[in-house]
Amino acid sequence: MSLLTTTPGNTKPSLSERYAGVRGFTDRLTADLGPEDATVQSMSDASPVKWHLAHTTWFFETFVLARLDGYRPVDAAFESLFNSYYNTVGTPFPRALRGVLSRPTLDQARRYRRAVDESLRGALDAGLTERDPDAAAIIELGLHHEQQHQELILTDIKHAFSINPLQPAVIPGGLDQEPAVAAPDTGWTTFDEGNYEVGHADAGFAYDNESPRHRVWLDAYQLRNSPATCGEYQAFIADDGYSRPELWLSEGWATVQGEGWAAPIYWRNDGGDWSEFSLAGRIPLQADRPVTHLSYFEADAFARWSGARLPTEAEWEAAAAAQPIVGNFADVLMQSGLAPHPAAEVRHAEDDVGPLCRLYGDSWEWTSSSYTAYPGYRPPPGALGEYNGKFMCNQYVLRGGSCASSSDHLRATYRNFFSTAARWQFSGVRLARLA
Amino acid sequence: MSLLTTTPGNTKPSLSERYAGVRGFTDRLTADLGPEDATVQSMSDASPVKWHLAHTTWFFETFVLARLDGYRPVDAAFESLFNSYYNTVGTPFPRALRGVLSRPTLDQARRYRRAVDESLRGALDAGLTERDPDAAAIIELGLHHEQQHQELILTDIKHAFSINPLQPAVIPGGLDQEPAVAAPDTGWTTFDEGNYEVGHADAGFAYDNESPRHRVWLDAYQLRNSPATCGEYQAFIADDGYSRPELWLSEGWATVQGEGWAAPIYWRNDGGDWSEFSLAGRIPLQADRPVTHLSYFEADAFARWSGARLPTEAEWEAAAAAQPIVGNFADVLMQSGLAPHPAAEVRHAEDDVGPLCRLYGDSWEWTSSSYTAYPGYRPPPGALGEYNGKFMCNQYVLRGGSCASSSDHLRATYRNFFSTAARWQFSGVRLARLA
Amino acid sequence: MSLLTTTPGNTKPSLSERYAGVRGFTDRLTADLGPEDATVQSMSDASPVKWHLAHTTWFFETFVLARLDGYRPVDAAFESLFNSYYNTVGTPFPRALRGVLSRPTLDQARRYRRAVDESLRGALDAGLTERDPDAAAIIELGLHHEQQHQELILTDIKHAFSINPLQPAVIPGGLDQEPAVAAPDTGWTTFDEGNYEVGHADAGFAYDNESPRHRVWLDAYQLRNSPATCGEYQAFIADDGYSRPELWLSEGWATVQGEGWAAPIYWRNDGGDWSEFSLAGRIPLQADRPVTHLSYFEADAFARWSGARLPTEAEWEAAAAAQPIVGNFADVLMQSGLAPHPAAEVRHAEDDVGPLCRLYGDSWEWTSSSYTAYPGYRPPPGALGEYNGKFMCNQYVLRGGSCASSSDHLRATYRNFFSTAARWQFSGVRLARLA
Amino acid sequence: MSLLTTTPGNTKPSLSERYAGVRGFTDRLTADLGPEDATVQSMSDASPVKWHLAHTTWFFETFVLARLDGYRPVDAAFESLFNSYYNTVGTPFPRALRGVLSRPTLDQARRYRRAVDESLRGALDAGLTERDPDAAAIIELGLHHEQQHQELILTDIKHAFSINPLQPAVIPGGLDQEPAVAAPDTGWTTFDEGNYEVGHADAGFAYDNESPRHRVWLDAYQLRNSPATCGEYQAFIADDGYSRPELWLSEGWATVQGEGWAAPIYWRNDGGDWSEFSLAGRIPLQADRPVTHLSYFEADAFARWSGARLPTEAEWEAAAAAQPIVGNFADVLMQSGLAPHPAAEVRHAEDDVGPLCRLYGDSWEWTSSSYTAYPGYRPPPGALGEYNGKFMCNQYVLRGGSCASSSDHLRATYRNFFSTAARWQFSGVRLARLA
Repeated sequence: MSLLTTTPGNTKPSLSERYAGVRGFTDRLTADLGPEDATVQSMSDASPVKWHLAHTTWFFETFVLARLDGYRPVDAAFESLFNSYYNTVGTPFPRALRGVLSRPTLDQARRYRRAVDESLRGALDAGLTERDPDAAAIIELGLHHEQQHQELILTDIKHAFSINPLQPAVIPGGLDQEPAVAAPDTGWTTFDEGNYEVGHADAGFAYDNESPRHRVWLDAYQLRNSPATCGEYQAFIADDGYSRPELWLSEGWATVQGEGWAAPIYWRNDGGDWSEFSLAGRIPLQADRPVTHLSYFEADAFARWSGARLPTEAEWEAAAAAQPIVGNFADVLMQSGLAPHPAAEVRHAEDDVGPLCRLYGDSWEWTSSSYTAYPGYRPPPGALGEYNGKFMCNQYVLRGGSCASSSDHLRATYRNFFSTAARWQFSGVRLARLA
Repeated sequence: MSLLTTTPGNTKPSLSERYAGVRGFTDRLTADLGPEDATVQSMSDASPVKWHLAHTTWFFETFVLARLDGYRPVDAAFESLFNSYYNTVGTPFPRALRGVLSRPTLDQARRYRRAVDESLRGALDAGLTERDPDAAAIIELGLHHEQQHQELILTDIKHAFSINPLQPAVIPGGLDQEPAVAAPDTGWTTFDEGNYEVGHADAGFAYDNESPRHRVWLDAYQLRNSPATCGEYQAFIADDGYSRPELWLSEGWATVQGEGWAAPIYWRNDGGDWSEFSLAGRIPLQADRPVTHLSYFEADAFARWSGARLPTEAEWEAAAAAQPIVGNFADVLMQSGLAPHPAAEVRHAEDDVGPLCRLYGDSWEWTSSSYTAYPGYRPPPGALGEYNGKFMCNQYVLRGGSCASSSDHLRATYRNFFSTAARWQFSGVRLARLA
Repeated sequence: MSLLTTTPGNTKPSLSERYAGVRGFTDRLTADLGPEDATVQSMSDASPVKWHLAHTTWFFETFVLARLDGYRPVDAAFESLFNSYYNTVGTPFPRALRGVLSRPTLDQARRYRRAVDESLRGALDAGLTERDPDAAAIIELGLHHEQQHQELILTDIKHAFSINPLQPAVIPGGLDQEPAVAAPDTGWTTFDEGNYEVGHADAGFAYDNESPRHRVWLDAYQLRNSPATCGEYQAFIADDGYSRPELWLSEGWATVQGEGWAAPIYWRNDGGDWSEFSLAGRIPLQADRPVTHLSYFEADAFARWSGARLPTEAEWEAAAAAQPIVGNFADVLMQSGLAPHPAAEVRHAEDDVGPLCRLYGDSWEWTSSSYTAYPGYRPPPGALGEYNGKFMCNQYVLRGGSCASSSDHLRATYRNFFSTAARWQFSGVRLARLA
Repeated sequence: MSLLTTTPGNTKPSLSERYAGVRGFTDRLTADLGPEDATVQSMSDASPVKWHLAHTTWFFETFVLARLDGYRPVDAAFESLFNSYYNTVGTPFPRALRGVLSRPTLDQARRYRRAVDESLRGALDAGLTERDPDAAAIIELGLHHEQQHQELILTDIKHAFSINPLQPAVIPGGLDQEPAVAAPDTGWTTFDEGNYEVGHADAGFAYDNESPRHRVWLDAYQLRNSPATCGEYQAFIADDGYSRPELWLSEGWATVQGEGWAAPIYWRNDGGDWSEFSLAGRIPLQADRPVTHLSYFEADAFARWSGARLPTEAEWEAAAAAQPIVGNFADVLMQSGLAPHPAAEVRHAEDDVGPLCRLYGDSWEWTSSSYTAYPGYRPPPGALGEYNGKFMCNQYVLRGGSCASSSDHLRATYRNFFSTAARWQFSGVRLARLA
């Protein structure tokens, strides 16, 4: 049932339809979580679900509704409480303490969502975007912003639930359990050397960090046809992967020893039986599912052990440019009531795209590229200039999209980024090497 | 309305009545808290309200119900989840992560309470304490244990709410606002030198740490008739109390500088207007209310600045032996719908006990005595031996009881204890000096 | 050769003679250390030897020489550099960074010593103490202060050398290796209940914290005749002493687990062979030597495992009042060229004092008494008031004196104190129990 | 006197001559340091001078002398003590504790140097490199390794001395004080777009990380003709540069606030007078000297404030390819007895190279490029493979060379690298922008 194609509608949805669709999907994702679930924060990297619900709403209120003459905020206190990191807007409430905020309650956060939704839909109906073309662009940005937070909602609450000895399911519907019809393709696809264009070009939405489109020279290279699987990663562990310093970056080895890492974060070995914690609770490990929740350090060590390396983001994008956005995505899985998780199946789409596959869905793929500005990059003026640019340091780029992403949120030029020790995202590895 | 006397009932309540009373009071204290409120943990010293509700229940299930033939636990997972620190019982869930546990929910915790209450009342009705006299003693211990946690519920959630910019009220009923009819009595009461008996003697309940009763020699000394007030503490601040190292213990001074302390934890100065955060929300500071939420370091520095010192616990107990347990207590305040807070009023009870007053209620009073074993102290065998003895190190004794204590939980021999930097308890200071 | 009696001279040495003696002993203790040795600081609790040499000199310069008309300091920068913690004198250089100060050099520190010695002896010759009686008292205090630092010099450099894989000897002369002539006496001496006087009384020197002399009631008790030995402590380890939480204070157990303690700090087990690091380098463990370098937590756990407890400081002092100050001391050992270390031998002095023995020398003995002010204690005015009083918190008292103490530095009322996790002092344990 | 050209000798020195020269220069750099100076370690990023002396020697012993039949190490303990991070060789002594090692002494470290020098020269004389060509390559690597440590010796001891209130001079000779003959050139040099070759190509020495030479596409860009000066950086400070979050990377801003940064690490403002700590002690700040000791965060914020950005390492190398290696270097300064420090003077060399100048010397120049592997990079086999590759993560590349570098150690392809908060290196900034 996986490797799902995004359904190409006959007509592109209107901004208003798209607003309703994205906002509604957030509600569906969180429908099975109670007030307690929505309140907890398991580490300072993560945020409470309640905070995500309100922050994404605050974004529309602060950057769109506040442009309306005479608009009065739903609650003046929310400006600081639900500001993530926009220093230009004011002083954000300290991130590490978000989990201490029992008020506003989940119910109040949901009412805040409805109030802002009503105002914004009213403004759209009243012709906001005709009068104020910038507003349309900001709403579009806000929807992609919300889709990013949808993924964070899943990964953050998954992390919290993983700590709970009860090991609860975030999404009670279970996993897609169809058996793999074929082993993952371990062949390689070759790309010629040359100058490639990368970065955002067409008329569709993209973040500022995907621009300007620019040229890069690439030596000839190869990408592995499939992402690495749990079975391959088990072989790395069995070969003492976590005990051999020569396989690791120096900082990675220090992390392995300091944190006592011996397997991916959600894996557990009970008397020889490997299991992993998923959004559907704890499940037996399946060798053919793509491995996920790897840190950059683990992805890099695994690649070295494999006699390969991580791709650069330009290599990844050059390869992806010709590929349709097909994969195993949250929006389609949730329509079937299934919990997002990497899929074992490797059945190809009808419009077969060759052996290189699964660039999207399942897991984001770590690249060896540090997250940095493209030549000529300029952040937008004002507070929205803080969206991306100020994080361009000590983070590495991931490409593709995961089972926790929505299919209409992704594109070949999309640059996700996390720090090298982060493990709570759906992040995996695709091998690369020089041709 | 304060300085409330405990109502001397004509008949002592039965164990069953007392069980119903104490357990029910926990419910009343937490009635206005929602699932989100019950889930948050603002620091590792504090616990979620939900955890307190379940842990006190776990105590009865583990130490009483488990004695019954064929008793089946409500949920096997609770043994670890709600074990606070009894290594003898098993490995407790890590304290600092209690706030990550969204499940069991508040509703489940309350159902756990009702299930255990039903079993325990059933057992009492079936003659448990006749067959098993130890069970009666453990139930009595469990009730005092629960009363301790009632106080922690109030101080823990107060701390969490104080961080919330919304500054919500824990108890919405407001404070006792009657004006003081007289200034606090700043005189001193003198006690003669001699050998005094301290420690638990009579037939009533006491913790193991109050025994054995034993002799101590005391040089002649004086206690201040009233606890120190907010007004007196404001004078200490105005006299640069927080900026003069000579007033502080060395470790206290390091804490003042490291933590940036400049006033008691819940005080705030907005352009010259002092306020404090209370269980009823933020209120203007009132000079005649006893000062509370002082650390040992602050109490000690204030005493030194005052030209006095903290009393020893023996001095305090010798003075209290002759006093009735009257004061401003949580049980009586809550009956009137008021939020527990130190009371400004100093009207005396009808059975006047002399000028030394307010030994109980308002705030626990720091003593200069390190918490240690009495001569011949022996902890009880088994897990309950972990209740008190293993904390006898690097903590200091507080005496009396606070506005967050219940009147029937206190006695002259009661030894409360906290570490020297702890500020989130209702802890104040009564001056002492040699006669 | 051990259990050395202090040589009772016919005539008490003059202040000038005593000054020369104490200052000279510091030089002898450090004679075998080079500039590099004198510079290192292995933890913030410890100080470089060079710093000790200068700080003790600073004490005489600041508190004695500065009283002289027209005295000009040797170097103005030393006021801050070699101030330990006297806020009244100025802002001390940060303690944790003392090991970064390569200048002044060891040679300069020694010249500083000689310059101050010359000035001070000149002042004494010119009749300083006749004109200024307080100066005599401060010099006496300065000499005892220096003797405290002599002990710290040994323990601090021992700690640094213990980390060095070369395991160098601080004192190259080796240890007193005479075999024990008898097993340690494991009997007990009983003391009757009653009111005892403790604290400093006679005309000799004492620190402020030993006063006022005052009465304490003691229940009847027993002290073990000998301090605990390495052999007894090995039995504790063999009985899983470091793995059983029920033997430990809660904070001690957290320390054992957090720090990975499994034996005293300088012990090592190489394939079953126990050794310990000493001032003479690494040596095989000898069962009959008193165990030393225990933290309070370890002493307390060992006592609990032994079915006993630590004595209170009053119990210790009441027992010691009748005992001569005999033992195994640094001054006598160094005269024979031996490195200070607890002695295996238990031969008694000729003026036999009964079975209770070895109260002084070998190791300081932990008491269960928190370090606190005696009733009526008043620190002296001015900077010297910071000597003792401000540390009366979260520290525990040790009594007696160790193999690193000088015999003429000790007395029954002496109160040493350290925090509960400190292990780098010569600190051991003598068991106590109620009679 | 600055902007010194490397003296082009008529004949290239032999390996033996070069060995003697590099090793001897280390001795000259450290000639004025005493045993105490050579022992201190002011932070875990830095190492004691003594350790540098021994570690560079260990390198030759471990990787060259150990290849000789029957070679016996000078001291078996040194293998671990002076191993920096080569896990393949054994377990290194913990880096943060190097400053605790008083033994071996400075004198022993110097004797170790002489012993290894003698053995190595003997082997060279006996035809080692003819029999074992790899040995010659490793010796060459060892000499460049030692030159890196020469720079670290200066920066590490400078950091330690900067903490010392005495503010001692590392190099007593003073600074080059000639006044600037012209203001720094604030013009820009433009480079055309195109594919450039970067990386090591010729026959000379280079580290593994400079290979393979490879193609990169560069958009047209400009480099500022001179590095930024202290005067320009003062303007950044005066414009509230350290108080405006919009100028900083998010992680940089957190560092500014967490560490309280308000100026470069060695700058001090005493009542309006700016000074900086130099290797010659504290000196008044001179506006025309290049600013140095900037972290990546500071360089990046300054560039943003300037309306420019940092160059990429490829932009820097493409510009440098045509430039001679001229500048203000440690080897030449030390020949004149001067302490290495950025020079105010901007007089050009006779063989004028155009307005773009001072690419080498004064300060390393931060690039925006994360330190990563070149396409096709392969670390060498064995322990020497740990030299560079394992640090390719969360570090940023600096180019050029500083006043603490030797002129014959540098080349256009050289890649230095440090983490983003590092400030103790001679690291500055040259602005870049798109053409």
